[in-house]
Amino acid sequence: METVSNLLEAIDDVGRDAARGGYSRPVFSTAELDLRSWFEEQATRRGLAVETDRNGVLWGWWDSATGNGRRGALVTGSHLDSVPGGGAFDGPLGVASALAAVDILRERGVEPQRSLAVAVFPEEEGSRFGVACLGSRLLTGAIDADKARNLKDPDGTTFAEAAQARGLNPQHLGRDEEALGRIGDFVELHVEQGRGLIDLDSPVAVGTSIIGHGRWKLTITGQGNHAGTTLMEDRADPMVAAAQVILAIRKTAAATADARATVGRVQPIPGGTNVIASRVELWIDIRHPDDATTAALVESIHGQAQKAAAFEGCSASLTQESVSGTVTFDAELQRQLSLAMPGAPGLPTGAGHDAGILAGYVPSAMLYVRNPTGVSHSPEEHVEPDDADHGATVLADVLKRLL
Amino acid sequence: METVSNLLEAIDDVGRDAARGGYSRPVFSTAELDLRSWFEEQATRRGLAVETDRNGVLWGWWDSATGNGRRGALVTGSHLDSVPGGGAFDGPLGVASALAAVDILRERGVEPQRSLAVAVFPEEEGSRFGVACLGSRLLTGAIDADKARNLKDPDGTTFAEAAQARGLNPQHLGRDEEALGRIGDFVELHVEQGRGLIDLDSPVAVGTSIIGHGRWKLTITGQGNHAGTTLMEDRADPMVAAAQVILAIRKTAAATADARATVGRVQPIPGGTNVIASRVELWIDIRHPDDATTAALVESIHGQAQKAAAFEGCSASLTQESVSGTVTFDAELQRQLSLAMPGAPGLPTGAGHDAGILAGYVPSAMLYVRNPTGVSHSPEEHVEPDDADHGATVLADVLKRLL
Repeated sequence: METVSNLLEAIDDVGRDAARGGYSRPVFSTAELDLRSWFEEQATRRGLAVETDRNGVLWGWWDSATGNGRRGALVTGSHLDSVPGGGAFDGPLGVASALAAVDILRERGVEPQRSLAVAVFPEEEGSRFGVACLGSRLLTGAIDADKARNLKDPDGTTFAEAAQARGLNPQHLGRDEEALGRIGDFVELHVEQGRGLIDLDSPVAVGTSIIGHGRWKLTITGQGNHAGTTLMEDRADPMVAAAQVILAIRKTAAATADARATVGRVQPIPGGTNVIASRVELWIDIRHPDDATTAALVESIHGQAQKAAAFEGCSASLTQESVSGTVTFDAELQRQLSLAMPGAPGLPTGAGHDAGILAGYVPSAMLYVRNPTGVSHSPEEHVEPDDADHGATVLADVLKRLL
Repeated sequence: METVSNLLEAIDDVGRDAARGGYSRPVFSTAELDLRSWFEEQATRRGLAVETDRNGVLWGWWDSATGNGRRGALVTGSHLDSVPGGGAFDGPLGVASALAAVDILRERGVEPQRSLAVAVFPEEEGSRFGVACLGSRLLTGAIDADKARNLKDPDGTTFAEAAQARGLNPQHLGRDEEALGRIGDFVELHVEQGRGLIDLDSPVAVGTSIIGHGRWKLTITGQGNHAGTTLMEDRADPMVAAAQVILAIRKTAAATADARATVGRVQPIPGGTNVIASRVELWIDIRHPDDATTAALVESIHGQAQKAAAFEGCSASLTQESVSGTVTFDAELQRQLSLAMPGAPGLPTGAGHDAGILAGYVPSAMLYVRNPTGVSHSPEEHVEPDDADHGATVLADVLKRLL
């Protein structure tokens, strides 16, 4: 078996971001295409039959020895795209561990009684087109194909155009009955993105649930003007209102148990140093285990935003970009994971994953590997080589149980 | 005489910004080069000899009938570049009015006793390379040529590279004794960028002073992390600290008589919706008639920024990008302007101009034309055609007095 670290070393140089640190590997970028080529080569080397489906999901197939086809197969995998300036493990760890698990199963002489596939989902982060888990949402029909086609990246390129440039037919995007029918069970291995396994002192955990999360875009409109000639009292400055809203979001989330709310993206327009902005757009990421509480948080933040905007002589409008309710993973798959990883704790997560989307359609589960920094979506994200190999081994164990 | 409105109509389509509204005409962009070509054509049509100096300043010369050369000439003009999403008049009004004034002087049969030039200064707004009035700063030596060469636009292109691509020799940038020696007096006509002339009910005003102003960049560094998995209490979120600073800036400026302070440009890094930023960069524009008060404002804001950053577990550092002290225009030129515009009020301004830079080296003055919206650096900026023609006429009157 090739170690997981060795596998990841081969892509260590792909998509490095000198300005932000870490990696920027947006979907359909040169970097992400290089990663796909790397996957195809690694899968082919392992005798897996590689194909790309009509939504751009990559599949590496180890067909069943019984000749009973691909329907109801056991599927594992993750994603290769990253957030801007992300870490090396978020996504690629699950793909590399799946490849390593295939090695382990081969070494053990396993003959699959049903087909096994390693899948790579595109645009899991939503960092280019704004909707996270876009590949799994398209495959399952969780997003309307027309809505997906019209999503735009920051340069104004639509998802349809970007997909076409990469050889996909935009008209064929959307729910794929055949591909979905092939997924009997889905198990995703992922680096943990918080401090849960540090605190629990365990290298791996069984995923129990993904807490509900969504993205909202807030637009605050004021009066663009000259920064030098406009008296302070004559201003309707949307940036001041935006600052009030950012603080209100922090305060509201901190006052609500188990809530997380973040503003990580802000765009003043026009964005000149000597110009009072005419408009500020900001994006709010809100998460809570209880979907009703998430809805209440959104309502509270919306109300506070309108009040802050009005106080500054501005107006505010909020639009929902995506929302996913809290997902509890399949009980039987959780049980099988616990049997394969005796003593491993169960762990809910605040991070969204393709397994969370697929869970609405097929039995799905996750296992997490310890991240000793507790930091993710950042260059500081880390996994120790031993933990990574341990993860691949227990992934192989659970796949063997499920095959 | 061609009306000023007619002159401006010819460039009405150049550099329109569909996304922001108004115009985006950054220095050395296709749009700004089209405007330069328009100027060259208009100047040539009026018998002016056009040349570009080594800092990219455009000159249209009406040489003196006495044959005494160009030293100590009377110069008028303005700029053609714009802020992102700016109005149609900020800059171009001064250039078009200068051309119209030449028409008026010709019609009146004026024979210049000293040479007259119409000048167009590049990168007045600083919207591409970050330093306002870059052309006049280079010509006078108010900015170090090396510093100017190394200024970068948002794409990472240096000013030296951009200048070279437009046919300038980067090694020849910097103080130009010959060009400076040609400016005997400088008079700039500009659209008013505030509400002064609305309140005073006058179409034109004599500029008295430019209040001191500068730009500072504040960098707040925290801990980038995952927006879903990082508990609110575990965060060191520089965006929250930035929001505190934006409110502190507003509050501090509002509490200081005659102060203006603005945050119109904010850049979270990496800038993902589901990512707690690791760093936020923001730019602060601060202005006050009293330079000591400006310095005190900067110190106060710096202190508050460090406190807000520390409270969030972040750190803050402030760097000065440019600063210009309060400038009082030449008394004799102000007197001549008042004689040419009987009853016109005197007006200080919070806006920076090339005339403010040149005033440190040669006698300089300004006249303002009414802006009925009081809004500038925005598509709403406006000048009524009658006011524009009145401005060109009084500009011709004062030029005649000074020739």
